[in-house]
Amino acid sequence: MTYGHTFQAWRDNTPAWGLYTRHRFVQGLGDGTLPRAAFLHYLKQDYVFLIHFSRAWALAITKAETVEEMRLAAGTVHGLINEEIALHIKTCARAGIDEATLYATQERQENLAYTRYVLDAGHSGDLADLLATLAPCVMGYGEIGAHLATTKTCDTYAEWIGIYASVEYQQLCQDVGVLIDGAVARRIGDRADASPRWASLQARFAMATQLEIGFWDMGLDP
Amino acid sequence: MTYGHTFQAWRDNTPAWGLYTRHRFVQGLGDGTLPRAAFLHYLKQDYVFLIHFSRAWALAITKAETVEEMRLAAGTVHGLINEEIALHIKTCARAGIDEATLYATQERQENLAYTRYVLDAGHSGDLADLLATLAPCVMGYGEIGAHLATTKTCDTYAEWIGIYASVEYQQLCQDVGVLIDGAVARRIGDRADASPRWASLQARFAMATQLEIGFWDMGLDP
Amino acid sequence: MTYGHTFQAWRDNTPAWGLYTRHRFVQGLGDGTLPRAAFLHYLKQDYVFLIHFSRAWALAITKAETVEEMRLAAGTVHGLINEEIALHIKTCARAGIDEATLYATQERQENLAYTRYVLDAGHSGDLADLLATLAPCVMGYGEIGAHLATTKTCDTYAEWIGIYASVEYQQLCQDVGVLIDGAVARRIGDRADASPRWASLQARFAMATQLEIGFWDMGLDP
Amino acid sequence: MTYGHTFQAWRDNTPAWGLYTRHRFVQGLGDGTLPRAAFLHYLKQDYVFLIHFSRAWALAITKAETVEEMRLAAGTVHGLINEEIALHIKTCARAGIDEATLYATQERQENLAYTRYVLDAGHSGDLADLLATLAPCVMGYGEIGAHLATTKTCDTYAEWIGIYASVEYQQLCQDVGVLIDGAVARRIGDRADASPRWASLQARFAMATQLEIGFWDMGLDP
Repeated sequence: MTYGHTFQAWRDNTPAWGLYTRHRFVQGLGDGTLPRAAFLHYLKQDYVFLIHFSRAWALAITKAETVEEMRLAAGTVHGLINEEIALHIKTCARAGIDEATLYATQERQENLAYTRYVLDAGHSGDLADLLATLAPCVMGYGEIGAHLATTKTCDTYAEWIGIYASVEYQQLCQDVGVLIDGAVARRIGDRADASPRWASLQARFAMATQLEIGFWDMGLDP
Repeated sequence: MTYGHTFQAWRDNTPAWGLYTRHRFVQGLGDGTLPRAAFLHYLKQDYVFLIHFSRAWALAITKAETVEEMRLAAGTVHGLINEEIALHIKTCARAGIDEATLYATQERQENLAYTRYVLDAGHSGDLADLLATLAPCVMGYGEIGAHLATTKTCDTYAEWIGIYASVEYQQLCQDVGVLIDGAVARRIGDRADASPRWASLQARFAMATQLEIGFWDMGLDP
Repeated sequence: MTYGHTFQAWRDNTPAWGLYTRHRFVQGLGDGTLPRAAFLHYLKQDYVFLIHFSRAWALAITKAETVEEMRLAAGTVHGLINEEIALHIKTCARAGIDEATLYATQERQENLAYTRYVLDAGHSGDLADLLATLAPCVMGYGEIGAHLATTKTCDTYAEWIGIYASVEYQQLCQDVGVLIDGAVARRIGDRADASPRWASLQARFAMATQLEIGFWDMGLDP
Repeated sequence: MTYGHTFQAWRDNTPAWGLYTRHRFVQGLGDGTLPRAAFLHYLKQDYVFLIHFSRAWALAITKAETVEEMRLAAGTVHGLINEEIALHIKTCARAGIDEATLYATQERQENLAYTRYVLDAGHSGDLADLLATLAPCVMGYGEIGAHLATTKTCDTYAEWIGIYASVEYQQLCQDVGVLIDGAVARRIGDRADASPRWASLQARFAMATQLEIGFWDMGLDP
């Protein structure tokens, strides 16, 4: 399983990556110690997150330069709006939280900071800048799902884990990896890491990773 | 068949609407007198148009205020990229024009003016401003398809007519009508036509209609 | 001294307004109890804030519908970039902080959340949506400056207070008030508070006010 | 007089550059054969052009990555709104055209196509993409002014020529050249012409040049 060489380079140069993907919230999903209240609080915030994250992926379509880039970005938008958000609604419904309640969730500052940072990266830069801030969430959840699927010691959050460990989600991560590798090659070239832009793309990826950590922290604080 | 009351009002207050939907290019599709070269030239330009029109619909997702608005806009993006563009590729392939040729089409000024005007309406205003410029193409083609399906005297362009007269396309027009009525009610209220914004929305719709006429004119001039 | 009737209405309907304009950080500026370290930390974060706030005001120019709207927004951009940012550089230089250090300031999450929220309000909505999120900072500082100028009991932060109490800054607040009243009347009408948009504009103003409070809190926590 | 090495490279690789800067409209300004009606028609369209061109320069501020980039872009916005547009108003006033008439000018398609193309280049790409479409107008007028100032055989349009030949305008061109060289070096590196982006930046510059030719053609056709 690989999510592309650009992601791999960004990830390996982000010291905080492990703090994000091995966060206490993540551990609590794997061993079942995460309090139910924290999980439901997280789900509600994540519903709001997904709305703005979908908007950011839609922005990627507007910044595509080829039909192939459009198709890959549009496929992600479709998956987010029609599958991932729908799944959140279903999961929350089973927990007694209806969609109106979800939609009325008061967005926490840690949540807001993250998605608006991603959107601004897209508006201020080009597609590569935007993708560098979209990657940590997409691929990080892919890594977390795959990791927890083989290491979990409790099935309390097995359904959540199953989503991100699934063949479909892992395929999405690979598709996004292809999109990123292609977008970077097209705009920067084969030696992207030698370009002056590399440091700023790396910094955007690191900032989004930091904001993921803030999101997990917020999740533990209902 | 109705495409919503907002569209109906905009349409009925646009004197040039008939010049667009009953254009000589349209008549040529119905009676088969449209030269083949003009049709293929139009298809190539329309392929480029659809790319930028899809970008504008993706922009609508970024400007949605409700999940329902997002879903309707995302459905249109999906239909445009995965169905309408795909159909153009297939139709052109049968005529001996491959996708690389399509993509390399030199965009004509009349084409460029139209889609960039739509995109700017979205960036400078809110979702209602954007929808006012998206409506003439979507609904105009719906009207043209439905009209030609019952009045055509020649089957040369029956396949093209069939697409826009189809149940699926007519349903798309109705969905977009629902989206527009809802977006306008949400932002302006029930008496939208009494709002100071009405004149500017009407003017945007009229400008996009004018640019449609320019597109047909361009189609007749390969 | 009035900053326009739209601002007045938004302000009077925002319960947290007093928590922002009478915040402990503000009191510390007036009675001199604010620790120097907190003030310098605030100035550095505010330098980063002003960069992104200037970007948001520049976005307002791109969303203007009249030359008058453009002029007022451009005047604010000019004042921010050439006067307010320059003043921060000068003040910090006297405190031994050079511009390179300022520019390298690690942006705090509370800071980032605020400006990116404002930018997104502009990108997702129209000029009125953007102005509703720009107003709390501009006018709040105007109120704070005017209030502290007459109530301060210590001159430690007299220079800072003097800037926002100055005739020039108060004039800027009045100009922005004129811009907001005009933009709202033009887009929504004379009875804007009866429009369905009013609640969402009010909510944007309230969110930006909340983010101002977060900014002061952050200022107390170097 | 040099406007920077990036502009020079883009210009020298654009075959249509001479068709733009030595257009029949330009010759008519130099030898006085340009009909007065064409000139006044051009001034009115150019007033509308400058409004949207100012919006595009404001967009550049929102896409800047350094304070220096912001200052240079903001200086251009200031010059455009407070000087160049003001000058058009004054010139037109002397010719009996008031500002209300100017503002009510029906924007021609050639005009609309140009500025919306520039704005979309900015929204879809980063600052370098935007600057590649802004350069032909700014620097082309600088070249035209300087050329006509030394070659004109008639003083009918001496005032217009004088504006673009002025020390102030030539300085603006040099400042924009510095901004472009810096923005390109920062984002692409010292060997920008070896980057895969070079061809697309060059193509954007060429398209904007083509749209300038369309603008002159439109000027000759009141």
